[in-house]
Amino acid sequence: MLEALKEKVLKANLDLPRYNLVTFTWGNVSGYDKESGLVVIKPSGVPYDEMTIDDLVVVDLDGNVVEGTKKPSSDTATHLVLYKNFPNIGGVVHTHSPWATSWAQAGESIPALGTTHGDYFYGDIPCTRRMTQAEISGEYELETGNVIVETFKDIDPAAIPSVLVHGHAPFNWGKDPEEAVHNAVVLEEVAKMALQTLQINPEAPRMQQALLDKHYLRKHGKDAYYGQ
Amino acid sequence: MLEALKEKVLKANLDLPRYNLVTFTWGNVSGYDKESGLVVIKPSGVPYDEMTIDDLVVVDLDGNVVEGTKKPSSDTATHLVLYKNFPNIGGVVHTHSPWATSWAQAGESIPALGTTHGDYFYGDIPCTRRMTQAEISGEYELETGNVIVETFKDIDPAAIPSVLVHGHAPFNWGKDPEEAVHNAVVLEEVAKMALQTLQINPEAPRMQQALLDKHYLRKHGKDAYYGQ
Amino acid sequence: MLEALKEKVLKANLDLPRYNLVTFTWGNVSGYDKESGLVVIKPSGVPYDEMTIDDLVVVDLDGNVVEGTKKPSSDTATHLVLYKNFPNIGGVVHTHSPWATSWAQAGESIPALGTTHGDYFYGDIPCTRRMTQAEISGEYELETGNVIVETFKDIDPAAIPSVLVHGHAPFNWGKDPEEAVHNAVVLEEVAKMALQTLQINPEAPRMQQALLDKHYLRKHGKDAYYGQ
Amino acid sequence: MLEALKEKVLKANLDLPRYNLVTFTWGNVSGYDKESGLVVIKPSGVPYDEMTIDDLVVVDLDGNVVEGTKKPSSDTATHLVLYKNFPNIGGVVHTHSPWATSWAQAGESIPALGTTHGDYFYGDIPCTRRMTQAEISGEYELETGNVIVETFKDIDPAAIPSVLVHGHAPFNWGKDPEEAVHNAVVLEEVAKMALQTLQINPEAPRMQQALLDKHYLRKHGKDAYYGQ
Repeated sequence: MLEALKEKVLKANLDLPRYNLVTFTWGNVSGYDKESGLVVIKPSGVPYDEMTIDDLVVVDLDGNVVEGTKKPSSDTATHLVLYKNFPNIGGVVHTHSPWATSWAQAGESIPALGTTHGDYFYGDIPCTRRMTQAEISGEYELETGNVIVETFKDIDPAAIPSVLVHGHAPFNWGKDPEEAVHNAVVLEEVAKMALQTLQINPEAPRMQQALLDKHYLRKHGKDAYYGQ
Repeated sequence: MLEALKEKVLKANLDLPRYNLVTFTWGNVSGYDKESGLVVIKPSGVPYDEMTIDDLVVVDLDGNVVEGTKKPSSDTATHLVLYKNFPNIGGVVHTHSPWATSWAQAGESIPALGTTHGDYFYGDIPCTRRMTQAEISGEYELETGNVIVETFKDIDPAAIPSVLVHGHAPFNWGKDPEEAVHNAVVLEEVAKMALQTLQINPEAPRMQQALLDKHYLRKHGKDAYYGQ
Repeated sequence: MLEALKEKVLKANLDLPRYNLVTFTWGNVSGYDKESGLVVIKPSGVPYDEMTIDDLVVVDLDGNVVEGTKKPSSDTATHLVLYKNFPNIGGVVHTHSPWATSWAQAGESIPALGTTHGDYFYGDIPCTRRMTQAEISGEYELETGNVIVETFKDIDPAAIPSVLVHGHAPFNWGKDPEEAVHNAVVLEEVAKMALQTLQINPEAPRMQQALLDKHYLRKHGKDAYYGQ
Repeated sequence: MLEALKEKVLKANLDLPRYNLVTFTWGNVSGYDKESGLVVIKPSGVPYDEMTIDDLVVVDLDGNVVEGTKKPSSDTATHLVLYKNFPNIGGVVHTHSPWATSWAQAGESIPALGTTHGDYFYGDIPCTRRMTQAEISGEYELETGNVIVETFKDIDPAAIPSVLVHGHAPFNWGKDPEEAVHNAVVLEEVAKMALQTLQINPEAPRMQQALLDKHYLRKHGKDAYYGQ
């Protein structure tokens, strides 16, 4: 069942340690099959160097396990909220990558300071509000998804494919698991450079809107001319 | 004697350079066998890439060498104080891992700023007071253990398995040597992100108590639901 | 056609990930053949680990593709402006290496703070002015070259072989592609140390002119005595 | 001639890139044979990955080449001043290792902030004064040695085996080339942690004198008890 997607999800999970995005098991990738409405996701707490394709878990959008003998990632409910609310995404990645997590802990959005940022994110990468005690004590992982969706009520998730969850860590998405991991790598690089930039010049302004338009749109949309 | 524990202690010591926690010989791991009341510990000043199981030293809780031809780690007395005072710990790790050591040198506790911290430490990671001249000039390594125990007089060492010794470096513990090393890795990651967080936002508050409860208790205790 | 230069350009491109100067495809190297007036450059958006010599593109100084089946780097027009305006350069490198990019995002020139800098750069490494909306919306990559040339109107590009483009990232050059990559590595190291220096001492002055003269001139020019 | 020393000097030079202390050829190690009064040193500007034992150069304390076909390191005169003035040293190492170099560029001594420092350095690691224009324009490398010796007029070079040359980079020494490299590694680690410590707590005081005594003297001198 969904063998091609499972291969992609396994590879994307194994890419997390390869790109130095995770310590131990602190991350997870899922992939979504639009046709069947099913999600393939990493099992909870299984080390990356022992993970095989048979460890992956298939769930429906309500979180019911459809296939697999392991428990799915404890963050599964967050992934599902994103698939239900963000149109056309096919992969979700959660990590505690240290630079992006530091911004999340600081409770600050990452400002668009340069073209590296603008090549992938069409504006600031937002940090959610703090979650309420009721949200945390209730269905925490589901509410984590809800607060992300709330953060994007006036932002296009296709144009800003990452978020910082306040006091927690980033989530990223993309058209498939590979693109979601790609965005997670970019986020970490952008988060690192944003802090360094502000250490060099605490008054560093955001990049010009014209420059952001130029860089984002030369790689995305109908007038893109980057790549082959 | 204690062959299984020796294997674990050797592996845990070799994991220190593998996880980039030590330069040269700046670290040591021990393991405790509750039944016999004996401790297996790294020899003093032996490079990791030459260390074999026969270099390990077995001592009793009073520090008498029971087996082994090498001198035990110069920090042995500190380890023994921890085994005598912290119930149910089976492994102790000392390193000079650079981020945690920087906090120890700064004389500051690491505040609980986010869920990475809260997944492993149920509150701030304390820094001891400065030791007195008498403690330093006397039985220094034993007194180092005593000042750690004093620091935990109102803290549960099972819930906060690391400490920063003021002007020195961290000690970590766990139910066995492997878990103690695991905690040492987490401490280093948490120490790094805490500084970066405060560089981004010097006013960054501690995480909400509800969020700390949620994350710590989803991985620890009777209601834990993380992992398989 | 230009096989020897292509070998050099391929090797120089592959050196970018080897020296940790690029993430994904965020960089490009070209080489210039003075005799034929042709430039060999990386194709746009092709991953380094799949790139072969046949992917390289040959263009003339007006940007016409003379050989190759791929689209040339989207930054080709910038490279061409530099070859046309800076005498005797034979290689150009663009990266988003993180320390140098942070200075570019900060909009600050890198001051000459020590001999590592002075061994390669005979003065501050300048940051361009911000580009205007007209420049960005027009022939952006060509205008990027123009603003670099403008920045060097009173600076000898042979003595300062790197520049920071404001809000963007560095460009570097040299007598051939290899030297241009060498300079890109040095720039990154110098950019890192400059920030750290100012973090230790925010009042750190520039190095003495005599020391800059000594170091630069013992490696460059007719009285050089460094090396074999 | 001096084959055993040459082996040590070659190994020590190759250890510089292995310990991430050098970029390209930015470092050099020499060794001193007290009996013959001769020094074996790295050739100038030869890449580490091509260096063989036959590239090493033998010079006398006046800098005359006694054996070897290559030019000796451009820093040879500095090494020789140290061998002539610091009793009982048998190895000298110069690098541009980035953390220590940042302190040198900042013109600041590295304060003794913790036991990692105190295990190897019995006090602050000094930064020299700025060199005068006459010193720089004259016999620069020899004067670099002289300003180091001047800096140590009230400091025991055996107890503080490293120095920061103002606006330049560190020099380190030891009883043989291996120990000098060892000290260079420690210096870099200590330099990194000193900056991080002061970023966490700008008011972080020096370690207690009693703690410095304890740590330095448990590893050095007649009452040392660290190691086998």
